[in-house]
Amino acid sequence: MTYGYIGSMKAKPGHREDVVSILLRNADSLRQAGCDLYVVSVSETDQDTIWVTEVWHTKERHDASLQLPEAKAAINEAMPMLTGEFTSQETTVRGGLGLH
Amino acid sequence: MTYGYIGSMKAKPGHREDVVSILLRNADSLRQAGCDLYVVSVSETDQDTIWVTEVWHTKERHDASLQLPEAKAAINEAMPMLTGEFTSQETTVRGGLGLH
Repeated sequence: MTYGYIGSMKAKPGHREDVVSILLRNADSLRQAGCDLYVVSVSETDQDTIWVTEVWHTKERHDASLQLPEAKAAINEAMPMLTGEFTSQETTVRGGLGLH
Repeated sequence: MTYGYIGSMKAKPGHREDVVSILLRNADSLRQAGCDLYVVSVSETDQDTIWVTEVWHTKERHDASLQLPEAKAAINEAMPMLTGEFTSQETTVRGGLGLH
């Protein structure tokens, strides 16, 4: 059972690139927290939406990662640049190509 | 510029596992078609929804892959088991962890 997360957030106008930079800053450190995949992408159909897709060993490790000091700092830094419009979907990953 | 795709589809009741199997059948062959990531997962919040997240070298290679005979066969086989409710989002991938 591998845990998947697909989420979106909306940046205030002009702030999308700033938020993307914050989201990518600690990406490499997620591996040791139990993360297999963390992809940050931007919508092609509007100027403000950011998508994050993640695969983790377990939901517990994902949830625990949000308590790491660098995660909390990133959330605090990004939050004022976001509109508060989020979507999220938890999944169970069944397989595919490119997961390591 | 790396092309991302995040899509969902809804299976008719009782058919989700059949559709997941079809979606995974040709996953390994996508690499040579220009695909870096193809993840099939199932919603944790309902019984019928399937999510597919993909990363491709270019949108053109993604679109071309849908014309491959095995892709057309898979689409034809899965379609009668789907309700017709789809979501899709095209993105540009900015980075992250776990992409190769």
